[in-house]
Amino acid sequence: MDGEPTVTDEVVAGLRDTHDPRLRELLTGLVRHLHAFARETRLTRREWEGAIAFLTETGKSCTDTRQEFIMLSDVLGLSMLVEGLNDPHCPGATESTVLGPFHLTRSPARERGADIDLTGGGEPCVVSGRVLSRDGVPLPGAAVDVWQADGSGFYDVQRPDVQPAGNGRGLFTADDEGRFWFRTCVPSPYPIPVDGPVGGLLRAAGRHPYRPAHIHFIASAAGHVPVTTHLFVAGGDYLDSDAVYAVKPGLVTEFAPVDDPEAARGWGVPNPYRHARFDLVLAPA
Amino acid sequence: MDGEPTVTDEVVAGLRDTHDPRLRELLTGLVRHLHAFARETRLTRREWEGAIAFLTETGKSCTDTRQEFIMLSDVLGLSMLVEGLNDPHCPGATESTVLGPFHLTRSPARERGADIDLTGGGEPCVVSGRVLSRDGVPLPGAAVDVWQADGSGFYDVQRPDVQPAGNGRGLFTADDEGRFWFRTCVPSPYPIPVDGPVGGLLRAAGRHPYRPAHIHFIASAAGHVPVTTHLFVAGGDYLDSDAVYAVKPGLVTEFAPVDDPEAARGWGVPNPYRHARFDLVLAPA
Repeated sequence: MDGEPTVTDEVVAGLRDTHDPRLRELLTGLVRHLHAFARETRLTRREWEGAIAFLTETGKSCTDTRQEFIMLSDVLGLSMLVEGLNDPHCPGATESTVLGPFHLTRSPARERGADIDLTGGGEPCVVSGRVLSRDGVPLPGAAVDVWQADGSGFYDVQRPDVQPAGNGRGLFTADDEGRFWFRTCVPSPYPIPVDGPVGGLLRAAGRHPYRPAHIHFIASAAGHVPVTTHLFVAGGDYLDSDAVYAVKPGLVTEFAPVDDPEAARGWGVPNPYRHARFDLVLAPA
Repeated sequence: MDGEPTVTDEVVAGLRDTHDPRLRELLTGLVRHLHAFARETRLTRREWEGAIAFLTETGKSCTDTRQEFIMLSDVLGLSMLVEGLNDPHCPGATESTVLGPFHLTRSPARERGADIDLTGGGEPCVVSGRVLSRDGVPLPGAAVDVWQADGSGFYDVQRPDVQPAGNGRGLFTADDEGRFWFRTCVPSPYPIPVDGPVGGLLRAAGRHPYRPAHIHFIASAAGHVPVTTHLFVAGGDYLDSDAVYAVKPGLVTEFAPVDDPEAARGWGVPNPYRHARFDLVLAPA
């Protein structure tokens, strides 16, 4: 096994001239873990070839509207781990989750109360809440970026033939009391795209590709740490087996059924409808 | 840091239904090492984004004639490690090395003694040797697959405009005494392609991209373990800093200068020329 035990040290030593000390630290850690993985599993040549082919195919599956490597990171739990490492949860603040692969386009700025469901057909729904600091003070002018799949479980970028660009997306500004509200349809669980290499991986691992129903949020305000998070629909399927491990109990919210014609008129939705109340609480910067 | 310590166990537990136990073992090891790497380095979100972009670009750089992921594996020393794990060196047999990214096309079958340097211009050279079993018995009919870069350091597939397909390549069959021989030019050191993501990585790491001058071989014979190896030119540059870590002392061979008009006529090369003698010794299957 000539050379086998020493090649790792040789590669690490060869990183000595890396200009950026942080890059050297990252590459050193990468080489040590990659080599330890190969040694511990006694990786065969055929398996190595399979990994090369898988990574190549994953890269080739990426387009302007699809990021297969982010999906790979998501289904391996890496995205959620990185999120946790970078945003250690600040008690009292809204918990963060993964960005996911579909925040690819800029959300169109919309007036508070706008309907982001441009195609209609789903169950009508109002989402309202406030952006607050941790001590409960409203944050006027906070930005609330929202994106979600339509009633069939697809994002606008996945179905440009049937969804106008910006469907399911909106960039809102909180009012003087930190409030935001918008109309949409109740989101549905949906499978992440399984027609690429990551889908093959999930099938081989006997895992389903579904995500529980959710709406994505990024909330930001001056002097505060922005939060990237999800609002999950309470009582829905897959809350305990999210394909990308993003569910946290504090983010699961009641989408309460409402039968109140006057309230419906007030929000501008048909009666009956559902109403999710969800405050976004930001930690101080 | 809610969820951070537990997401790894959650992902590993989620692999319980993987049909193939070996795939489960590989995915479990991958998830554990990938997560440990992120934790130990406290990987930032920006670094994670950089890694996603790098991998995507690496996939997109792959073509029918270029395999950037194999190059990445090569410069990280993984290819050489996998080679060592799969072909533990059998004392007395020729040591194995990486396949490299340029064995992309089938080598054309050639008669013993053929000149594989179809474009000419390099320093003329004869390579001769025998394929032997470990106890020194010749292996008649052994296959000897050979490929090398031309005098400018490029493989045929990299320069289809100036090199005919099959330049620098040949598939030879050993004679009744296990002998093979062919004509070529003395190979030069060359840089691996640096116009893609792997080149950027090498620059950032302050590493040069050169490989010492070499000829690739795959030798195979019935009843024996095939060997994938390199013949390195003794005295050349970069023997102690090969960009892909493939050099082993036993593979460094004298390309001896010869000034002997009669011998030159015998081999069919101009005088003077150089002559490398290199036996390929195969372990029993």
